[in-house]
Amino acid sequence: MPEVRAGELLLRVVYLSLDPYVGSILRGRHMGEAPPEPGNVIPGRGLGQVLVSKAPGYSAGDYVLAETGWRDHAVVKADCVRRVGTGIAPLSAYLGAAGMPGLTAYAGLHHLAKIRGGENVLISSAAGAVGGTAGQIAKILGASRVIGLAGSDKKCSLTVQNYGFDDCINYRTPDWQDKLRAAFPQGIDVYFDNVGGELLMAALTNLAHYGRIVLCGLASQYHAEERPAGPNPGLYIAKRAQLFGLVVYDFEKEQDAYSEMAGEWIRQRQLVVMEDRVDGLENAPHHFEKLMRGENLGKAIVVVGPEAQ
Amino acid sequence: MPEVRAGELLLRVVYLSLDPYVGSILRGRHMGEAPPEPGNVIPGRGLGQVLVSKAPGYSAGDYVLAETGWRDHAVVKADCVRRVGTGIAPLSAYLGAAGMPGLTAYAGLHHLAKIRGGENVLISSAAGAVGGTAGQIAKILGASRVIGLAGSDKKCSLTVQNYGFDDCINYRTPDWQDKLRAAFPQGIDVYFDNVGGELLMAALTNLAHYGRIVLCGLASQYHAEERPAGPNPGLYIAKRAQLFGLVVYDFEKEQDAYSEMAGEWIRQRQLVVMEDRVDGLENAPHHFEKLMRGENLGKAIVVVGPEAQ
Repeated sequence: MPEVRAGELLLRVVYLSLDPYVGSILRGRHMGEAPPEPGNVIPGRGLGQVLVSKAPGYSAGDYVLAETGWRDHAVVKADCVRRVGTGIAPLSAYLGAAGMPGLTAYAGLHHLAKIRGGENVLISSAAGAVGGTAGQIAKILGASRVIGLAGSDKKCSLTVQNYGFDDCINYRTPDWQDKLRAAFPQGIDVYFDNVGGELLMAALTNLAHYGRIVLCGLASQYHAEERPAGPNPGLYIAKRAQLFGLVVYDFEKEQDAYSEMAGEWIRQRQLVVMEDRVDGLENAPHHFEKLMRGENLGKAIVVVGPEAQ
Repeated sequence: MPEVRAGELLLRVVYLSLDPYVGSILRGRHMGEAPPEPGNVIPGRGLGQVLVSKAPGYSAGDYVLAETGWRDHAVVKADCVRRVGTGIAPLSAYLGAAGMPGLTAYAGLHHLAKIRGGENVLISSAAGAVGGTAGQIAKILGASRVIGLAGSDKKCSLTVQNYGFDDCINYRTPDWQDKLRAAFPQGIDVYFDNVGGELLMAALTNLAHYGRIVLCGLASQYHAEERPAGPNPGLYIAKRAQLFGLVVYDFEKEQDAYSEMAGEWIRQRQLVVMEDRVDGLENAPHHFEKLMRGENLGKAIVVVGPEAQ
């Protein structure tokens, strides 16, 4: 066990969150950060329980979110953690629909796209942690029609049957672009983009005039060596499109308020949480690769230890 | 002379406006419109004087803006014209800084980018009808620093000496990207893009976080056979950029109010009008080619007839 100094906490990691941005970090493509050297801890957010506190305000037994990395125990600075209240939502939901992925979805739809009641919404990576939450939040915020894009029939079923999407199109079927056009006879008012590439182009083609696009993720580029080009700006002009680049860190001060609101939605079953869990830190690499291949159904989580000890 | 029917006006064209969008129409690239057949009139906006009115509210002698096409006389429907008041601004300014190009600049800066006092602004095609007006309006609306991008030293001199830009960078010099970086130590808050291509990419690279980009024109594509790709959406995300596709037709109902405001700016010498004139309709093709090669200094106009007759 490492030494715990003043202002620090020793955590026992309960859940480790697996997120695509970690893949970007490992490739040196995240916010200008250098990738970790081989042998160093792989970065990642975890939900942990305090074993030893040398910081005011925290006691042994408290649950916190922290940058734990891929570890079963971590010493972290107390001013870099966020306390999670038990009972507001299931603990693991703080890594997904009630946590940062959920805030990402909410910030994009509410603060950037300023979604209004009655609008027609398209969500890509619809079965993913951000996309699945975004579709449900769009409904909560009054969207009249929410359509998903996902990479398998199984994922599409999840979004419609569990998340309440109105429909979901498997973009790996040959006629998916025809289905997309048919799904939006009035055009797309808001497109929440977690993918880029061909899906962004198809959404733009079917965008209503003055439609808004939240640029959130780039799943189509996870395995690309080069960053491919994007749509010609003339296509945005023709649609009078509005685009918003989203980085969730900008909304961090809203995280607690969001978590409380999302916890309420979860309790009222307006917001359904689905998780793709694996047990044991030793299975994290395999589970992470599964996430990066897009084979997860719901929020990817590693169960590192029991909730209560 | 064609016959004038009820609800129509016979105009004597005084000034013909030459605008890049006409090049797009001729190439079949404008708003989904089919290009005119050979032998048909080339489209274009003109300022004309009414010779014969068969419409209530208009009398011989009135000046109006209309879709006259490249002609010395035109019969137009009265409900498709816009009256211009003499004395508010020089008549020809209604085709430029006080007209549609001016409204384009104003709508992009004020309505879309919502420019605030103290911001740092970059304008491409800075010596053009839209760009030259946009730089001046940015100053009027309180921008602390307005930098132009133009394709020659002569154009750059015009923007600084006549329009009051703080500086202008000739993007045909080898070190222009270094100069651009040096001109915006805090990053670009608002970029008004009339060009696309390499200039858009350079502006994006130097954009401040949360910077806004008005996508207005595509001068870099006037002569391209194919529509080139644009920036990777990941670049917009990293900057938390906001993009706004601008089509001035959407703001048409504000044209009269804008023209009045712009007329006041012109009288107070806050807004300087520069024109690149040629005499005689027979010189319109040559003058238009000059515009499309980017060799105009100021608003390109063909003087078809005298103002007063």
